[in-house]
Amino acid sequence: MCRWMAWMGQAVPIEELLFKTQHGIVDQSLHARMGAEPTNGDGFGLGWYGTGEGPGVYRSVAPAWGDANLRELAAHIEAPLFIAHVRAAIGSPVQATNCHPFRRGRWLFVHNGYIADFDLLRRDLMLAVDPAQFAEVQGSTDTEVVFHLALTFGLESDPISALEQTIGLIEATARDRGVAAPVQGTFGVCDGESLWAVRYASEGPPRSLFASTDAATLKALHPENPRLQRMNEGDRVIVSEPFADLPGAWHEVPPGTAVYLRHGGDLKERPFVLRGG
Amino acid sequence: MCRWMAWMGQAVPIEELLFKTQHGIVDQSLHARMGAEPTNGDGFGLGWYGTGEGPGVYRSVAPAWGDANLRELAAHIEAPLFIAHVRAAIGSPVQATNCHPFRRGRWLFVHNGYIADFDLLRRDLMLAVDPAQFAEVQGSTDTEVVFHLALTFGLESDPISALEQTIGLIEATARDRGVAAPVQGTFGVCDGESLWAVRYASEGPPRSLFASTDAATLKALHPENPRLQRMNEGDRVIVSEPFADLPGAWHEVPPGTAVYLRHGGDLKERPFVLRGG
Amino acid sequence: MCRWMAWMGQAVPIEELLFKTQHGIVDQSLHARMGAEPTNGDGFGLGWYGTGEGPGVYRSVAPAWGDANLRELAAHIEAPLFIAHVRAAIGSPVQATNCHPFRRGRWLFVHNGYIADFDLLRRDLMLAVDPAQFAEVQGSTDTEVVFHLALTFGLESDPISALEQTIGLIEATARDRGVAAPVQGTFGVCDGESLWAVRYASEGPPRSLFASTDAATLKALHPENPRLQRMNEGDRVIVSEPFADLPGAWHEVPPGTAVYLRHGGDLKERPFVLRGG
Amino acid sequence: MCRWMAWMGQAVPIEELLFKTQHGIVDQSLHARMGAEPTNGDGFGLGWYGTGEGPGVYRSVAPAWGDANLRELAAHIEAPLFIAHVRAAIGSPVQATNCHPFRRGRWLFVHNGYIADFDLLRRDLMLAVDPAQFAEVQGSTDTEVVFHLALTFGLESDPISALEQTIGLIEATARDRGVAAPVQGTFGVCDGESLWAVRYASEGPPRSLFASTDAATLKALHPENPRLQRMNEGDRVIVSEPFADLPGAWHEVPPGTAVYLRHGGDLKERPFVLRGG
Repeated sequence: MCRWMAWMGQAVPIEELLFKTQHGIVDQSLHARMGAEPTNGDGFGLGWYGTGEGPGVYRSVAPAWGDANLRELAAHIEAPLFIAHVRAAIGSPVQATNCHPFRRGRWLFVHNGYIADFDLLRRDLMLAVDPAQFAEVQGSTDTEVVFHLALTFGLESDPISALEQTIGLIEATARDRGVAAPVQGTFGVCDGESLWAVRYASEGPPRSLFASTDAATLKALHPENPRLQRMNEGDRVIVSEPFADLPGAWHEVPPGTAVYLRHGGDLKERPFVLRGG
Repeated sequence: MCRWMAWMGQAVPIEELLFKTQHGIVDQSLHARMGAEPTNGDGFGLGWYGTGEGPGVYRSVAPAWGDANLRELAAHIEAPLFIAHVRAAIGSPVQATNCHPFRRGRWLFVHNGYIADFDLLRRDLMLAVDPAQFAEVQGSTDTEVVFHLALTFGLESDPISALEQTIGLIEATARDRGVAAPVQGTFGVCDGESLWAVRYASEGPPRSLFASTDAATLKALHPENPRLQRMNEGDRVIVSEPFADLPGAWHEVPPGTAVYLRHGGDLKERPFVLRGG
Repeated sequence: MCRWMAWMGQAVPIEELLFKTQHGIVDQSLHARMGAEPTNGDGFGLGWYGTGEGPGVYRSVAPAWGDANLRELAAHIEAPLFIAHVRAAIGSPVQATNCHPFRRGRWLFVHNGYIADFDLLRRDLMLAVDPAQFAEVQGSTDTEVVFHLALTFGLESDPISALEQTIGLIEATARDRGVAAPVQGTFGVCDGESLWAVRYASEGPPRSLFASTDAATLKALHPENPRLQRMNEGDRVIVSEPFADLPGAWHEVPPGTAVYLRHGGDLKERPFVLRGG
Repeated sequence: MCRWMAWMGQAVPIEELLFKTQHGIVDQSLHARMGAEPTNGDGFGLGWYGTGEGPGVYRSVAPAWGDANLRELAAHIEAPLFIAHVRAAIGSPVQATNCHPFRRGRWLFVHNGYIADFDLLRRDLMLAVDPAQFAEVQGSTDTEVVFHLALTFGLESDPISALEQTIGLIEATARDRGVAAPVQGTFGVCDGESLWAVRYASEGPPRSLFASTDAATLKALHPENPRLQRMNEGDRVIVSEPFADLPGAWHEVPPGTAVYLRHGGDLKERPFVLRGG
């Protein structure tokens, strides 16, 4: 369930990507085309790095397509890095504490997918969370627990390695509990300077994940698009489902792969290899 | 936009029709098949006649599919007559005072459709509302104004005639203001004893409207369905879009037609003929 | 924080006690007089036994005083047993899953007070919950954990004994973690047939708790009050703070005491004695 | 009902005034000391001039004291001019379209007080609104109608004169309808460059209104307060109720008076004199 997108590059009004693209994330909240749920109307969240200390987070239980405040914020906040997420709840309550992105300090975390039979695994996984963080878990989603496991395994020093250990642990726990194919999805992480994303499924094809190609290619592909012509080298979008108005502009992240992006740098890929378990 | 349904007959737990049918109204809030909007997630309302004086009304801005309270009420309230509505807002704010059913005294009112260019007509139509009722209009929908116009034209004595005058006035006002094809939709009215419904469009086919066939036919059609076998003579459902699990069970109300239903009585039809204007 | 009330007796429209008393629970949501928080505006809940299986529960994050739906439900639902709760959050999020009453099967649970430094105790207490129930905890309040501990200790067979063990465990855990005076408050439990309440604090006076005196005394005290004259023998109200319009009608439950009430029976008291730990 | 505050001066993080002052507006939402309602928990709004075109507006039906998003926005948005408002509804629904500030183009409008017997006056006053604006009225408050009347009377060229005509019209309409003492309150208006405020009541003392004294006086009064020492000449706060931590810092606006403030300029006062009617 869910869809997400992240922007990294020059500071832009958030509405440019949330509302002014064709088939952007807010449009996807009402009718997504890829993946399992066409409607992602069970709340949303936006995390951005701008004025003030650390990221700001706005989360609401309203559908993104109808939230008047989201339009206001998107029109009046600029940021060089932000993540937006629209939610399709599968079982857990529709409440702000279940909306992504989750935050700790400078870190934000989003997920599109699920941990299968999470109810059967929740206690074991919660026990594996650093006891000092246990009481920080405020909602009831699988994703928030994944985030705190990754923090426990060192997300703040090496996000991909921490996620490899986290998913490794979930796979092992699922085996112990007789849960098959427990992990499905894509994950996004950022700290204000860099952005990491992972595409993984225990079995079968994982949820889709795309990165925009570099700005030069985008400009050459779409010389008629004035917004693209304003893009700088290094501006990038990571999306669970491409915008409709930019054919040819997307690089599909392969299954079982992690990507890494730094302000102004190239997109780097590496295999996502489970650890531990 | 929107979908609605009404039950009239023996007292039943509301969940029987809202949640336990296939493709019932709550399911239609997430993915309707007929009409213009597949998603009706901008709030909902339920009005029922049971304990206490007059109808109870529960309205919420949450999508019906995800509202935990609606499941609770539907499971714990029985009623011989109720109307439910799911909303797809087109322009007006998502707020409870814009959710149907609207109520005055013993009367409830719902609408699926729209008044075209309502902003151009709103002032004229509000001026035609009985001045004593002007301040009762709490929201900003076209439907609430239609309801108060119909009340002004005598809805409480003769609902269909009052709606014929109301729609007549709207057509005339639209002509004056240069608005073409102003009225589209189906309307539902009840007072606790009877139920009226109208299917009308200024031009082209109106939104769909169906009545369940009589209980004897339903039982003969679906001998395998235990819930249907419990139906009494006179039990009826009026819906904007049929439930999926009852093929053959539906009578389509023709365009330009009003239907009338009394507890235990037959469904009566008559042409819907504009008046005045 | 918080206030609560329970009714047990003849079936009455819920509004009689929620809205039509002087200084009833909804009024207390806006300006309570006893206890620490004058405003209890961080959501509310209502659980009732009536039509349908088990109790119905309506919970909302809106302040009780302004919730239009609560007025509707209270006016259109009658019940012989119900519990209402208004919340003043102290730290945990304002969300429906943090609103009381909590429910499991036929059981409802409310609390007025707190577990001190709950963040320091949460993990230990969650580990003491029956593992099969761990994943049922949906919110982040202390009260929901207390409820699941009590269920673990046999609430469904002997509520008071289970609470004595639960509070005993909390006191012991708090000692281990260096938390002083961990438990403060009153607790209410019911199963549709009986009602139990506890008043307890680790040190100092616990939050207030009152039971209405028997109907005969009430009638004699207030011969001018027509609503009281309709009371039957056995009708009772338990409240954290008395209604203002019934002086002389209240029996204060002593500190460290549990009370028990059955439909049509007398109010029974016994000392509340910690166990285990 | 209600409380409001406005900041004009150097760009500051909004939280400095909303959350970090003693007895600021958010604190006043839970327990105000002056005026009629100690609790202002029926929604709130924030309008600010910063990034993007025109003012941004964030409005919510949650009590300001418990809204997690408001804390986020206040911590991550800086503005040289903003207005915040907390609401105590008296009769009209708790919905975002009834929350202040109201906006049209670059203009924001807030009100603390009421139009007496507004239901009796609403139709006449709505008819006096410029017909082209009639359909812009989205909510059901008296204040939104006052705002559109003032716009009709030229608020965008001369706010105080337009309000003098507006209040004059309301007084005259009230006389016609037999409503005594119709207007009570303070009004705030801004356009991004200037700020206007009015204190007026038809009879008796109007709601309170204060302006902070000039920065030099504030610094001299409170040499120990580091936040005050950062104030620039021309920084000003207008409040319906003073912050608690700045005794001596407030100038009470006299009844029947309008004040005017420009970026970097002095506070100017003039009598507020009804016109027309």
